[in-house]
Amino acid sequence: MPDLISLALPHVARLHAYTPGLQPAEPGWVKLNTNECPYPPSPRVREALLREIGDDGASLRLYPNPTSAALRAGVAQLHGLSASQVCIGNGSDDILNLLVRAFCTHEAGLGFTMPSYSLYPVLVEIQDGRSTVLELDRSMQLPLERMRASTARAFILTSPNAPTGVAFGNAVIEQALQAFPGVLVVDEAYALFARENAVALLARYPRLIIVRTLSKAYALAGLRVGYALAHPELIAVLDRVRDSYNVNRLSQVAALAALDDRAYYDAVVARIVATRERSLQGFATRGWFTYPSQTNFIFTEPRDARGASGPAVARALYDFLYAHRVLVRYFPSHALTAAFLRISVGTDDEMQALNHQIDSWLQTSPHA
Amino acid sequence: MPDLISLALPHVARLHAYTPGLQPAEPGWVKLNTNECPYPPSPRVREALLREIGDDGASLRLYPNPTSAALRAGVAQLHGLSASQVCIGNGSDDILNLLVRAFCTHEAGLGFTMPSYSLYPVLVEIQDGRSTVLELDRSMQLPLERMRASTARAFILTSPNAPTGVAFGNAVIEQALQAFPGVLVVDEAYALFARENAVALLARYPRLIIVRTLSKAYALAGLRVGYALAHPELIAVLDRVRDSYNVNRLSQVAALAALDDRAYYDAVVARIVATRERSLQGFATRGWFTYPSQTNFIFTEPRDARGASGPAVARALYDFLYAHRVLVRYFPSHALTAAFLRISVGTDDEMQALNHQIDSWLQTSPHA
Repeated sequence: MPDLISLALPHVARLHAYTPGLQPAEPGWVKLNTNECPYPPSPRVREALLREIGDDGASLRLYPNPTSAALRAGVAQLHGLSASQVCIGNGSDDILNLLVRAFCTHEAGLGFTMPSYSLYPVLVEIQDGRSTVLELDRSMQLPLERMRASTARAFILTSPNAPTGVAFGNAVIEQALQAFPGVLVVDEAYALFARENAVALLARYPRLIIVRTLSKAYALAGLRVGYALAHPELIAVLDRVRDSYNVNRLSQVAALAALDDRAYYDAVVARIVATRERSLQGFATRGWFTYPSQTNFIFTEPRDARGASGPAVARALYDFLYAHRVLVRYFPSHALTAAFLRISVGTDDEMQALNHQIDSWLQTSPHA
Repeated sequence: MPDLISLALPHVARLHAYTPGLQPAEPGWVKLNTNECPYPPSPRVREALLREIGDDGASLRLYPNPTSAALRAGVAQLHGLSASQVCIGNGSDDILNLLVRAFCTHEAGLGFTMPSYSLYPVLVEIQDGRSTVLELDRSMQLPLERMRASTARAFILTSPNAPTGVAFGNAVIEQALQAFPGVLVVDEAYALFARENAVALLARYPRLIIVRTLSKAYALAGLRVGYALAHPELIAVLDRVRDSYNVNRLSQVAALAALDDRAYYDAVVARIVATRERSLQGFATRGWFTYPSQTNFIFTEPRDARGASGPAVARALYDFLYAHRVLVRYFPSHALTAAFLRISVGTDDEMQALNHQIDSWLQTSPHA
């Protein structure tokens, strides 16, 4: 038999696939690992789906609208933009992939901070492109002078950032737009949980692209919808590298129905933010260092019963929680994240279950 | 303002986007232009969707299974393969894109015949890769000697071919596998309407990849599901360049339910094939040259009332049908297709409406 792997392009043969958070098939887990919304989507989502499916699902035999036209118009209206400033993706990961394909090669690097969303370097590797990494320090503030010196063609700022939860804020993003001459992408996956967002900057900075998802606040991770907001000329660039039928019929109608129910999601977000603030207070009371979160997750540095922190402590707590069917996320591969755990904000009951397990862990771990 | 297009990669700035078939938003069209199934999907599809949506759509808040595990197992069972030989895509266009990303660059060309599916060169251009085109002649037979001489890294054979409807047959595909040393992809989008398919060849040819879609026979174009069948090592290559969450929850359950209802789809396919054969007979009676179709569409060379054929005649009929709200597909850009129209096989009523309009056209066009 031929060596099949060698038939692939060399950079593909060397690739390591992205590791998504665990999606356990069986019930019984307290699932706080992939920043999903702990509440169901708006009832209008179900109604819109049932309407589209109809008596016999006959509309499903037809291709979807190739530009997601109605959904583009709805997104535009939500943000006070024109439909030509909107591109819809099969999740925001699809949008990020389009950005890499449009702007990144081996010669034209894609910049991003470390830590940030771990998918970016994977997408760059698939493209056989170059990653231009801007290392943050423990302050998690953006080093603007090093951003000015970046040789990247395009740069992704994740704000609020993952897995830290720290937002850079519009003042810093505006400084970044002035410091960096290329395309600046602000990945606002968590914007609905933040105090501000960068949409208003679009009018003044045509090099700005904002990326959003319906997977977090809108409780539609299962349907894969995200979008980009940008100048029409940059949206046209994304459309040239986009699959014509990237967003299916049901996702298009469900997303539009969700965006239409502002009151429902305002309440959902308020509830998650309230739980987050109580949880942050709880970790502070334990004496654990935790970044101020503007997201639906918490990035905290656990201390064991002796008061010690560090990668071994974080891993021990991760393993303990896993053994007790509480799923959180651990990022051991970077010095700034290896002593921390990222915990999605669940329901109050789920956070109580988490806290109960943390208490147990503290009691079972060796004492000073 | 900066020249925004120049911020994109040069090959992206030069791109022409793929032109999908028209998807009219308003009703009243006889839609025979994108090879959709004229009948609704199996009732089990609707049942599976309603079950997944449930009382409140709560499952939609969770990410889908990142490998489409249950659907992979279902596809594997259908074809008598193992799940490790299956990769699920967001439509077969997603699979084709993954193939281009895994096997094609400027140095490693992607081969395909001309005419064939017009998306291939677009995907190659997005990748800044090289297309290695094998021109067919009017016989539409595969020139095996030129295939042996191809410098492509991977080659896509569309069988049955689009837009011609002609199948190469397993004997020729096996000869192609012996003649061509790289990865041979057989795009079997229309296999369910054909007399044979290449699945049995997988056991003997590890360099073979078969691509299928649920958009045609399975009446699920609106849900975007396709798949690849191949040796586990080649499937692993596709998985490395695949987005983890490329297939949403509803599409996964709907596709699995469809594949499970063999009796329903056997009847649907039989009905479409019967209509196709009657239609082929009708075009023969008109004296129009038509390729023998093993698909759910017909590729025919219209003659006007004077008996003339050619690009001007094909365009005149296309325009006449369009003006009377009958949508078919016209491919004017290639000498072998410019005198033809591609007509999807609809219901008997739709084919009757088409024939009625063709009769009107013949009466209104200039006579000899």
